[in-house]
Amino acid sequence: MQTITETRHMGGTHRVIRHDSRVTTCPMEWAIFTPEGGKPDACLMFLSGLTCTWENAATKAGAQAAAARHNMAVVFPDTSPRGEGVANANDYFLGQGAGFYLTATEAPWAPHFAMDRYITEEMPELIAEVLGQSLPPLGVTGHSMGGHGALTLAMKTPDLFTSVSAFAPISAAMESGWGQDVLPAYLGADTAAYHDHDATKVMASRGWKGDILVDQGLADAFLEAHLKPHLLAAAAEAAGIPLTLRQHEGYDHSYYFVASFMSDHVDWHAARLT
Amino acid sequence: MQTITETRHMGGTHRVIRHDSRVTTCPMEWAIFTPEGGKPDACLMFLSGLTCTWENAATKAGAQAAAARHNMAVVFPDTSPRGEGVANANDYFLGQGAGFYLTATEAPWAPHFAMDRYITEEMPELIAEVLGQSLPPLGVTGHSMGGHGALTLAMKTPDLFTSVSAFAPISAAMESGWGQDVLPAYLGADTAAYHDHDATKVMASRGWKGDILVDQGLADAFLEAHLKPHLLAAAAEAAGIPLTLRQHEGYDHSYYFVASFMSDHVDWHAARLT
Repeated sequence: MQTITETRHMGGTHRVIRHDSRVTTCPMEWAIFTPEGGKPDACLMFLSGLTCTWENAATKAGAQAAAARHNMAVVFPDTSPRGEGVANANDYFLGQGAGFYLTATEAPWAPHFAMDRYITEEMPELIAEVLGQSLPPLGVTGHSMGGHGALTLAMKTPDLFTSVSAFAPISAAMESGWGQDVLPAYLGADTAAYHDHDATKVMASRGWKGDILVDQGLADAFLEAHLKPHLLAAAAEAAGIPLTLRQHEGYDHSYYFVASFMSDHVDWHAARLT
Repeated sequence: MQTITETRHMGGTHRVIRHDSRVTTCPMEWAIFTPEGGKPDACLMFLSGLTCTWENAATKAGAQAAAARHNMAVVFPDTSPRGEGVANANDYFLGQGAGFYLTATEAPWAPHFAMDRYITEEMPELIAEVLGQSLPPLGVTGHSMGGHGALTLAMKTPDLFTSVSAFAPISAAMESGWGQDVLPAYLGADTAAYHDHDATKVMASRGWKGDILVDQGLADAFLEAHLKPHLLAAAAEAAGIPLTLRQHEGYDHSYYFVASFMSDHVDWHAARLT
């Protein structure tokens, strides 16, 4: 691992890190905020949405101010493998910047696209190494495609994640326009393979040990075609999982929305992690 | 005036506005955050630095969360006139994105570059019109070139501005590498014309009615060649103006620095405006 930049922020440190990933088999960049003293009591991972790198959330979401108050680190992974040797597509919802937090089995994606294992297998080791301590209690949240990632990965690896929340998540990838385009491309024609990457299906099959917080703007342009949080609420009710779905009049899909409720999410995770 | 976008943010509204400026004689864009209810008790103007538009501070500085707590509006003007008919330069510190909050007298800049009068003459009318009320008590802050703008414009128009602070300001434009390149280009060879655009000189000639808060990162790459806050501190001491210069170990020139201390500045202005 190589520290590309190290910047003081909110009394702590913002670091950008580059490393050769053994999972995606290409160089990856991610960022971490560590609070003052560098020994966090908890860590929150923020999974970003389509088109984003680590940078969007690190600069716009405002998580660090709240995290600093809780002696919490915040980790910002990238959203896909990248680079000249990595497959890409013309659509913003497929390829680089659109890893969908799954392991692709189809060409041309299979060689590098394995963002689920990158997040759940490699990233915890990297975080512990950067912190110089064993991994603190870990929460996960995310926005849009990253909300989908947070929900599915938490429910599939409950030993890794203690808490999960989401902002405007793709709540049921198989019922999402994006998902319907992307899942066949990454996973092939057999829809049975999709179930493990649809938050409502994973909720039904695996459940979740805790409660879940989801915020959704009602002026979100992607709400009806791609996000469908009512399907997640129905799945949670059927599974007996306490899900709080807050629906906010007038808020859209941008970071103006994410930032508006980020400190609530950080406080919420802190209450469950520390 | 035309509202380009209107987005809910922090319980209030983020608006991007386009208008044909009578001062810069070209279309201009700016943004305003109004807190919930839309009737702010105070307004803080944030003047941005080189290369920025309204967007950098509106998305990265985190002023809105603190402003919402104080029922305060925040205004984000652009940093220069722009467009195909507006002169530009290859250097990032001259031309579009680098208006330096002065009125240019030299070709090719004179026809459009008048950011001081745009901020102090036209912007107050626009703000009042957007708010639908008379202008509330107004504070001004800014970053780098925008810190220079905040300091010089406040001291030159004390009837307009009630409070002033700055983040890593160009503290003495005539002693700044940027200023030494830019002032002759905009104002000609006669250095007498520069004095009115150097914060230390304006401080000596005009003084300031209140106190001033300045934050500066000590790992700022522009500190010694361009910013020189010690000259501002010396000018304030000579003029008997209470200036608090906070110097922060390890902080750089980025918005990671600005965001780290923004809520302090908003609180500080609120105490003087409301």
